Amino acid sequence: MESALIFLDPNTDLSLQAHIRQKMVEAIVSGVFPVGKRLPSSRKLAEQLSVARNTIVLVYEQLIDEGYVVSRERSGIFVNAKFLEGRVGFDGNLVSERRESANWSRVVRRQAVHKKQFETPPNWQRFPYPFLDGVFDQSLYPAKEWREASRQALTIGQIKQWASETGGADDPMLIEEIRTKILPRRGIQASSDEIMITVGVQQALYLLSNMLVDSTTSVAVEDPGFPGFRHVIEHSGGRVIPIDVDDEGMQVTPAARRADIVMTTPSHQIPMAVTMSMPRRHELLASAQLNDQVVVEVDFELESNYLGKPHPSLKGLSAEDRVIYVSGLSKLLAPGLRLGFIVAPKEVIKPLRRLSSLMVKHPPLNNQRTAAFFLSLGYYDSFINQLHREFERRWIALRRAVNYYLLPFVDVAPAQGGTALWLRVSDDVDVGYLAQAAAARGILIEPIGDYFADQQAGQNYFRLGVTSIPEERIREGVDQLRDLIESVSEERVESLADAQGVRLSGEEIISRLAGKTMLCPIAYGDPCAIDIQSDGQLNGKAGYANEDCDSGEWWIEGSYWCRRWTRWAWGEAGRYHVVLLDNVFKLFDEQGRLIDQGILVNSDTLATTSEDDRLQATNWTKTQALSGSNA
Amino acid sequence: MESALIFLDPNTDLSLQAHIRQKMVEAIVSGVFPVGKRLPSSRKLAEQLSVARNTIVLVYEQLIDEGYVVSRERSGIFVNAKFLEGRVGFDGNLVSERRESANWSRVVRRQAVHKKQFETPPNWQRFPYPFLDGVFDQSLYPAKEWREASRQALTIGQIKQWASETGGADDPMLIEEIRTKILPRRGIQASSDEIMITVGVQQALYLLSNMLVDSTTSVAVEDPGFPGFRHVIEHSGGRVIPIDVDDEGMQVTPAARRADIVMTTPSHQIPMAVTMSMPRRHELLASAQLNDQVVVEVDFELESNYLGKPHPSLKGLSAEDRVIYVSGLSKLLAPGLRLGFIVAPKEVIKPLRRLSSLMVKHPPLNNQRTAAFFLSLGYYDSFINQLHREFERRWIALRRAVNYYLLPFVDVAPAQGGTALWLRVSDDVDVGYLAQAAAARGILIEPIGDYFADQQAGQNYFRLGVTSIPEERIREGVDQLRDLIESVSEERVESLADAQGVRLSGEEIISRLAGKTMLCPIAYGDPCAIDIQSDGQLNGKAGYANEDCDSGEWWIEGSYWCRRWTRWAWGEAGRYHVVLLDNVFKLFDEQGRLIDQGILVNSDTLATTSEDDRLQATNWTKTQALSGSNA
Repeated sequence: MESALIFLDPNTDLSLQAHIRQKMVEAIVSGVFPVGKRLPSSRKLAEQLSVARNTIVLVYEQLIDEGYVVSRERSGIFVNAKFLEGRVGFDGNLVSERRESANWSRVVRRQAVHKKQFETPPNWQRFPYPFLDGVFDQSLYPAKEWREASRQALTIGQIKQWASETGGADDPMLIEEIRTKILPRRGIQASSDEIMITVGVQQALYLLSNMLVDSTTSVAVEDPGFPGFRHVIEHSGGRVIPIDVDDEGMQVTPAARRADIVMTTPSHQIPMAVTMSMPRRHELLASAQLNDQVVVEVDFELESNYLGKPHPSLKGLSAEDRVIYVSGLSKLLAPGLRLGFIVAPKEVIKPLRRLSSLMVKHPPLNNQRTAAFFLSLGYYDSFINQLHREFERRWIALRRAVNYYLLPFVDVAPAQGGTALWLRVSDDVDVGYLAQAAAARGILIEPIGDYFADQQAGQNYFRLGVTSIPEERIREGVDQLRDLIESVSEERVESLADAQGVRLSGEEIISRLAGKTMLCPIAYGDPCAIDIQSDGQLNGKAGYANEDCDSGEWWIEGSYWCRRWTRWAWGEAGRYHVVLLDNVFKLFDEQGRLIDQGILVNSDTLATTSEDDRLQATNWTKTQALSGSNA
Repeated sequence: MESALIFLDPNTDLSLQAHIRQKMVEAIVSGVFPVGKRLPSSRKLAEQLSVARNTIVLVYEQLIDEGYVVSRERSGIFVNAKFLEGRVGFDGNLVSERRESANWSRVVRRQAVHKKQFETPPNWQRFPYPFLDGVFDQSLYPAKEWREASRQALTIGQIKQWASETGGADDPMLIEEIRTKILPRRGIQASSDEIMITVGVQQALYLLSNMLVDSTTSVAVEDPGFPGFRHVIEHSGGRVIPIDVDDEGMQVTPAARRADIVMTTPSHQIPMAVTMSMPRRHELLASAQLNDQVVVEVDFELESNYLGKPHPSLKGLSAEDRVIYVSGLSKLLAPGLRLGFIVAPKEVIKPLRRLSSLMVKHPPLNNQRTAAFFLSLGYYDSFINQLHREFERRWIALRRAVNYYLLPFVDVAPAQGGTALWLRVSDDVDVGYLAQAAAARGILIEPIGDYFADQQAGQNYFRLGVTSIPEERIREGVDQLRDLIESVSEERVESLADAQGVRLSGEEIISRLAGKTMLCPIAYGDPCAIDIQSDGQLNGKAGYANEDCDSGEWWIEGSYWCRRWTRWAWGEAGRYHVVLLDNVFKLFDEQGRLIDQGILVNSDTLATTSEDDRLQATNWTKTQALSGSNA
């Protein structure tokens, strides 16, 4: 179909020729006629516009004179690339001159909350070290399986089913897969009319806020917590009540008890990755019952608790019908697909469906059916398993690297899993600047001030995520980040050159270290004890219950103390200068950078030391290391 | 991954065995363990729950005793199908007993407007005569082309592109295709940052209302008009100002001039299918400029004007930046895909994107990319052409059938195209009941009272659409609908048995009709004149400008007047009884049903009759036919 590319206005005051010229110029300047594309011939354009051919010939002659177009022998008339070059801002995206227009800023009555500090750059995949959370590097995407599921959903018979379904109904096949394959893992039993599909978790949150929240509603949310919660609540006019999170999850404070609605992420607190303890879950549910609250439970990451067993969801635990469960498929399959779901009582699902119908009718049915096949073909199970194994490897690699390189610079929030670590730098570092400077070096880190109700509270935090970065890049990225943080921080971390204390020679190292135990902090807060046995063996125990143990060997090379672990520190040999200040030891690498610091005790003394004393000792050295002060 | 299907509550007061039994019963009743699926073995379940195997054995024994499950030799334990049969409502969808719950009706703060009269039944495809608009029969779906476009979008390289793109950006490829292929057809020139993709037209409307409308905003909408406009405006708290539509489209009344926003469907008014005239377009734009209004132009059906040339859009005509253009791809490709778009100034697109991000992040990127390939492979052009040809055939077939069978019963709104006709029956017919009764006979028609601001005003209207019904079924469906309307209406339409006037014999017919001209109304309001030549030829001219002409022949068989047109009346021979009352003729078919009625004039008189007199004559007979009264 050859359609007219310009339309004439019969009411114009211009002559026909001038008017056509004007329209042609507009079309050229706005890029409707792209550079390199042949313009319609004068004969054709005359036909389309129902004007005499000669009129068009004259217009074209004028445009050639003016330099808008060029005529090429035997090929036709083209937009003049040179003319455009002089005017184009970037990538050929042309905007015609501003015309008189409505006063848009006055016209807009309602705007989305917009105070996000950090936006993932669209080209993040080109960065060598993208430490992001929730965007996925290409290697993870189950392309083959998704194509197979798509192929199934694209057979003629299937297309006829999903292409013609109407009335806001979700794909019954997907609902059934979610009901029987996904929900039981979370301990949730639901009938199909208690489940609805949404355009990602985001739409689920928007729908619930729109329905449940108005200016009379107070909603308790975790602080720090997912900023999207606050945004949708505020957009609906509700009052946000920030509630602190501790290592058992969201607290059940008096303020939380007074809220109308409690929004929480128990399986994996966003952003702290704490899993809510069972006692806390029961406390929260009991409070909800007592205070007649609605609980909105959001499960961004299904079961990514690497270090413990998954707990059942609040929805599954609740003896009552007052929990609304929200989760998504899309983040796990691919962010582009946008499929989430809500599990709630029928009385809630019904008006939610009507609201969703007003907003978007329904999520695309082809994707619903494809996801249903993805689940029913069994790809989901193996994909989730594979993702978990991969993220676990990456997450542990991240902890290792942070511990080795960043120990003197950061505090790490405790976490039992998830796909990110959450770091705090010293007060003098501007995290926004740090993120910019890091990006300039190819490292993407995420400031997370907007996770806090009071952005000031979070201004020294950033997040390192692993969903986006292959395992083999993690160490190098963290190493490079260290250099940057060191250069940015005004607080001085000791280097070998200005280290306080006595630098030991090889012989001195043997006599002072052999038979001793090093008590060291680990970046992520666990205690660690390393026995330096006289026979050259090393024994390391980390964690509150010694859950992470390793063995290795140590030796002397000149004035270096050398060690190699089986697994720790990548199983690589490391050569360190040792500086001693009373019973505080400091290890500097060959570049003179502080790598480790702690106190030395006699191995046999330690056996009689109480656990509390040991913890105190590690905490003390941790504070030391971070403040950079001497003992 | 073998996951636990039930979770135990450590705080229960029940004994372990009773608690496990309770959870198992819940799981069985709610369908988590479907009929015919083997339950986990006692060993496996004991392991999953970390309880002694004997406990599970005892639970299973109890469940067998109680009839919930049955044990089958050498195959295991299964849910007892018989037990469930006694309790199931329908299709295995089980709901556990009601538990104490939140008071949901009190909790809900905001509900979607919900007063739709008619809902398309999800199984509409099984009805033999679905006269629906906007849902598509399977034959139309470009399955092969869509699969090819999907295949392109599913190559590994493509998946990597769309699966990882984030930050709320739309697919640049789709934006470019819309910008260069679709918008120029509507006379719109836009740069890529003036376009955004939405989850169907519905989301576009919701977004615009949410952003532009609050309790201080008045919005002029067409009456009758698309109910979705009123719903989104009211949901945002705005005031709806209904504006009458005439045969030039939405009127520019004083009330319309006072509104803050004007929402209109100029290319094809919903539901009347009027195309807004060029003078009206200019009047509306001039008023918008004078009164500083924003115009939201919604283009549900791109270019489906079969009888005339397409007009440029308001957006394309406007010299100012105050028109927001909304249209969609999905309705044309397949309703399941949900892709729409908005073209607006950058100042509007930017906050809209943020709002959309809050609502749904972005429309699924895989569908965006697939649609982009669909366009770039050239399928769009040929698909649209094919759709138009098909809908035009169907629409003309519908007009023919309505004219032949329903003439005495309905008024038809004038329309120049579109995919539906809009009919009014007499006041005594309850259209809601008519639609129900029709559905019971396999005919789906749509009451459209909810298209009117005042539902009472539209209570005698219904719509016959053709997007859903193959051409070959249209005539039969309308024929059957006629019988139903006749039986439902209390107003009597004359039949041969009770016809007033003189029934003519064969000879009388010749002497009274030959050399005369029949002036007849057509159901859709156009005039029609049929010359009955003495030589046995027929010449028919219909329409205000005789745009629809046909020729045929007539003859006598006994007391029947017979005629056969080349195209009209399906080119079939028809045998009619002729009754004459003064100069009013009535034709009854062999079943005695009134088929045609009009006045007879001398052919040579007519040549000297003014056009006005002719029109008056037809209008007069039309009124006659509808009222069923005698002359």
